[in-house]
Amino acid sequence: MKTFTGLSAFPLTPLADDKVDESAFSGLVRRLSSAGVDSITALGSTGSYMYLDRAERARVAQLAVANAAGVPVVIGVGAMRTSHVVEHIDDAAAAGADGVLLAPVGYQRLGESEVLDLYRTATEHSSLPVIVYDNPGTTHFAFSNDLYARIASLPGIASIKIPGVPDHAGRAKKHVDAIRSILPEHVGIGVSGDAFGAAGLVAGCDAWYTAVGGTIPGPMLDITRAVQAGDHHEALEISRRLEPLWSLFTEFGGSLRISAAIAEHFGLAAPGCLPLPIHGLSSKQRQVLIGVLNEVGLDETAGQQFTRDNS
Amino acid sequence: MKTFTGLSAFPLTPLADDKVDESAFSGLVRRLSSAGVDSITALGSTGSYMYLDRAERARVAQLAVANAAGVPVVIGVGAMRTSHVVEHIDDAAAAGADGVLLAPVGYQRLGESEVLDLYRTATEHSSLPVIVYDNPGTTHFAFSNDLYARIASLPGIASIKIPGVPDHAGRAKKHVDAIRSILPEHVGIGVSGDAFGAAGLVAGCDAWYTAVGGTIPGPMLDITRAVQAGDHHEALEISRRLEPLWSLFTEFGGSLRISAAIAEHFGLAAPGCLPLPIHGLSSKQRQVLIGVLNEVGLDETAGQQFTRDNS
Repeated sequence: MKTFTGLSAFPLTPLADDKVDESAFSGLVRRLSSAGVDSITALGSTGSYMYLDRAERARVAQLAVANAAGVPVVIGVGAMRTSHVVEHIDDAAAAGADGVLLAPVGYQRLGESEVLDLYRTATEHSSLPVIVYDNPGTTHFAFSNDLYARIASLPGIASIKIPGVPDHAGRAKKHVDAIRSILPEHVGIGVSGDAFGAAGLVAGCDAWYTAVGGTIPGPMLDITRAVQAGDHHEALEISRRLEPLWSLFTEFGGSLRISAAIAEHFGLAAPGCLPLPIHGLSSKQRQVLIGVLNEVGLDETAGQQFTRDNS
Repeated sequence: MKTFTGLSAFPLTPLADDKVDESAFSGLVRRLSSAGVDSITALGSTGSYMYLDRAERARVAQLAVANAAGVPVVIGVGAMRTSHVVEHIDDAAAAGADGVLLAPVGYQRLGESEVLDLYRTATEHSSLPVIVYDNPGTTHFAFSNDLYARIASLPGIASIKIPGVPDHAGRAKKHVDAIRSILPEHVGIGVSGDAFGAAGLVAGCDAWYTAVGGTIPGPMLDITRAVQAGDHHEALEISRRLEPLWSLFTEFGGSLRISAAIAEHFGLAAPGCLPLPIHGLSSKQRQVLIGVLNEVGLDETAGQQFTRDNS
């Protein structure tokens, strides 16, 4: 049976004065739990895992589990060094996490056998389910389908988080089918890149790993539930209405800065919540973003529900 | 007056059982000092800085200074988070380092103003000279000449480590001249990418930041001294004789794996000295490498001198 299906939401790890803002983080996790997401993935790219030290990451894992109110929690454990990955897995397990998310982060370019060994070590070390995190935009490592297959055959691999699907619906389905055909039955496929969420689910992905849905889960849940109810048209229509938001992702340097600006705008995190050297959006970009949020009908209640008929 | 001119050699930080091999590291530093390099840069990319934690990096900085026998020591201080960079600078200063090397390491893609602010914070925090580390192959950040100029105008910037020069001698000189023309007088230019070392010095670079020269400084010193004596022909000729070695850099995945294999082959580090997940070279690759070392006349004495007339 596949685990981690449906909507997995990635909360920010907001900082205040260069320390984890535990209250803001706990609030984001509770907000996701109340909204009814299917799982919460803390310390993903949206959760700034690569910017935090071991103690901070262990504490965030504890807070995530403590505030998730029973919703399954996945913890990002990626690190440059294999022994550090193992430490993060131990900390996630000690916190009571339900799974871990592992990206092949590299400073030196990694080869396929090095990445395979990394996943082998992780799965041999722990019985926690491992989600393979394919995020070439940040790791600069490109998985081949063959490597997906070899990693997925390791016992303990639960899901593969793919970086998007082709734009065209037919090609998207073909892409997901091709990956599916080489994976064991129990290994799921999750789409990421929020602009591709609806298309990915419609194309047959089992999960959507959402970045901005870690701050505004409402519309991402509506899309996910529509697909699960078989209403592909409705799912794609909601995503289409969010197009002005998706288009800012490329323009403003990715989902992290956008998610942080939304959280700050809605008072869910203090201003300047990203780890330096990352700047938040400029004032001008924030104004554009707020205009877009108004245009698509997203306000601070978007944690709970999305006004479907606002367009 | 420019600092950090001539040959700066980058020693490995060998590991044994996932711990810093302090004895092997100290030996490499002493070897460089005896060979007469102009400075020693510990914790560069060759020194695996991004794979080590704060305590390990602080200890390596101390060992570098303790074993350098008065040769100036530069310490790599790059990290994902600005506050960690500042901590590493403090540790380098406490160890008695003469300068720091700072790359704009990113997980999220950084913008120019973010990188500028990183260098501003570093130079405002400490009076240690800062070497700007432009290494797009590992950081995936591309400096513009305009950004070089803005960073170099910060007080405390000593040198810019550029990632290579164009192949053609005329274009190489033009390239270096173009960078020189936008830098303050006191800021030097150092070439890296060992295959480009001789060409970079001949084109007017003030320094060569050498990776493999951290293990076999002999020929790199010969090249550097030849250029300093005005004998460009001799410098280029020595580099040409090393061509079989340079060609392995691309083929075998970069200078780190090559340097480690050479150190292991010469008994300067224990087998498996790189941090996992990085594998060393395969047995077959090692055999090819050893063949090349023999072909170009490099043996374990290459720390002290290079047999110039072996070809």
